Amino acid sequence: MMPTILINGLSESSLPVNDRGLAYGHGLFETIALNGSQPVAWQAHLARLKEGALRLVIPLPANIDQLLESDLAALLALQRSEKGGQVRRQVLKITITRGCGGRGYAVDDAVSINRVVQLSAFPEYPDHPAENGITVRLCQTALAIAPHLAGIKHLNRLEQVLARAEWHDASIREGLVLDTEGFLVEGTMSNLFWSQGGALYTPQLDRCGVKGIIRQRIINLAVQQGIDLHEGLFTPEVLVAADEVFVCNSIIGIWPVTEAVLYHDQLPVWPVGPITRMLQSQLSTEGIY
Amino acid sequence: MMPTILINGLSESSLPVNDRGLAYGHGLFETIALNGSQPVAWQAHLARLKEGALRLVIPLPANIDQLLESDLAALLALQRSEKGGQVRRQVLKITITRGCGGRGYAVDDAVSINRVVQLSAFPEYPDHPAENGITVRLCQTALAIAPHLAGIKHLNRLEQVLARAEWHDASIREGLVLDTEGFLVEGTMSNLFWSQGGALYTPQLDRCGVKGIIRQRIINLAVQQGIDLHEGLFTPEVLVAADEVFVCNSIIGIWPVTEAVLYHDQLPVWPVGPITRMLQSQLSTEGIY
Repeated sequence: MMPTILINGLSESSLPVNDRGLAYGHGLFETIALNGSQPVAWQAHLARLKEGALRLVIPLPANIDQLLESDLAALLALQRSEKGGQVRRQVLKITITRGCGGRGYAVDDAVSINRVVQLSAFPEYPDHPAENGITVRLCQTALAIAPHLAGIKHLNRLEQVLARAEWHDASIREGLVLDTEGFLVEGTMSNLFWSQGGALYTPQLDRCGVKGIIRQRIINLAVQQGIDLHEGLFTPEVLVAADEVFVCNSIIGIWPVTEAVLYHDQLPVWPVGPITRMLQSQLSTEGIY
Repeated sequence: MMPTILINGLSESSLPVNDRGLAYGHGLFETIALNGSQPVAWQAHLARLKEGALRLVIPLPANIDQLLESDLAALLALQRSEKGGQVRRQVLKITITRGCGGRGYAVDDAVSINRVVQLSAFPEYPDHPAENGITVRLCQTALAIAPHLAGIKHLNRLEQVLARAEWHDASIREGLVLDTEGFLVEGTMSNLFWSQGGALYTPQLDRCGVKGIIRQRIINLAVQQGIDLHEGLFTPEVLVAADEVFVCNSIIGIWPVTEAVLYHDQLPVWPVGPITRMLQSQLSTEGIY
């Protein structure tokens, strides 16, 4: 099978080693659920990509939407001709780098960005974590407070790599990470919510962390349903008193958290509660989660 | 001319887009002055690479020294056969990534690292900054306090990219960066020293920053010469009272700083003083700087 990757619209799968994405992490990515030929929350992903590009001084072409849509259409056409049909759901990953440059941090304005679009299989979870809930742990790796990089999905992800490398127990499906001041931020690959007394809580992400697209959709859904929504700085102890806890990202949807190894002596458990189920139900209409 | 790059010992110049160096910055690099066929401070560069690999859970092969030396020898032989002789000085860059993996931050233990070794032209500076000194500025981009990533030369360099993107005035050759608490750290591509009253000062780099190889050599030289050496947390105001200021890296050697745009109303100037000249002289014996 041909790898389903396009680089700058061409059927390639490698980038030169002097690409600034590799050299410095000077780039951005988006991981998007693809429902048939339809990228879920496409406009929201494009908007985050554009905000990230502005903040990382990456000049996107004016027609970036059309370029990416055209790449996706070409990949899907290739795939259909190979497989004889449309794949029901898969993962679309977009990576934009500041392009290939010489040594040194300064950017040559003449250098064009590199645009990578790729498809991969949607992950299957035979143990049905969305239904049954997961166990999480509290990671030791703390996220640095870096407001100029907070919120966007850039390619400097060593903190997530180090946090994820802390455990090998396959029964633990996610790790929660704090910032260097001890406040809850997110999961290594997900955003975090919890409810208490009918209100929904999630960490503010203006100092570190990634503002997930599905996180914002959940915030919007909660507000639409009249649920009080609080973003703020919270220590992990708040979870002990929570009624429900869940993590979310654009591929897994919502996974209830039913158990957490917070500290050696703290093993709180939570039920999969009504707010979690209501939000899952709202998101399920797309047929992805 | 063939590009003078080897990847895992083979004549290639691209890496797959699923390399974890590109995806997450999960990797390290070293930039080394090559004196003929001899990498300057080779053992020190190898030691930093190995420390970084330990901290980033990157398993280096036991014979990594020999592999890299063999890559370098092969590149130099290729170059000699093309150019008919040995280049006097050039830049050797080594990049090690955690290899090619699937989606997700967890590492598959079966995945091998990728090893990139490349040669490039030694930069020429017709205005002789090492002799005449340079003007620097104080950057707005602050370095996050991230002790778990401090000191090593990893591939997450967006902070340096953003700091370097702050100015386009070619007469300013370097930017000084502070941490998010306002303490001096380094230059965007260099380490920082200053002297006052005969003692030498440099920022401590256990919270952020890169521990330059030439920085440590300068510390060692200063100690050998009986110069008091202080590493610590200092605010940029200390520079106003400094007798001499300089920046250093493995390619530029030592560049005296003779003028700095610290704040709008502060434009201190410094002479190129005796401590700077003594240290330059000590380093000049290798014929690189």
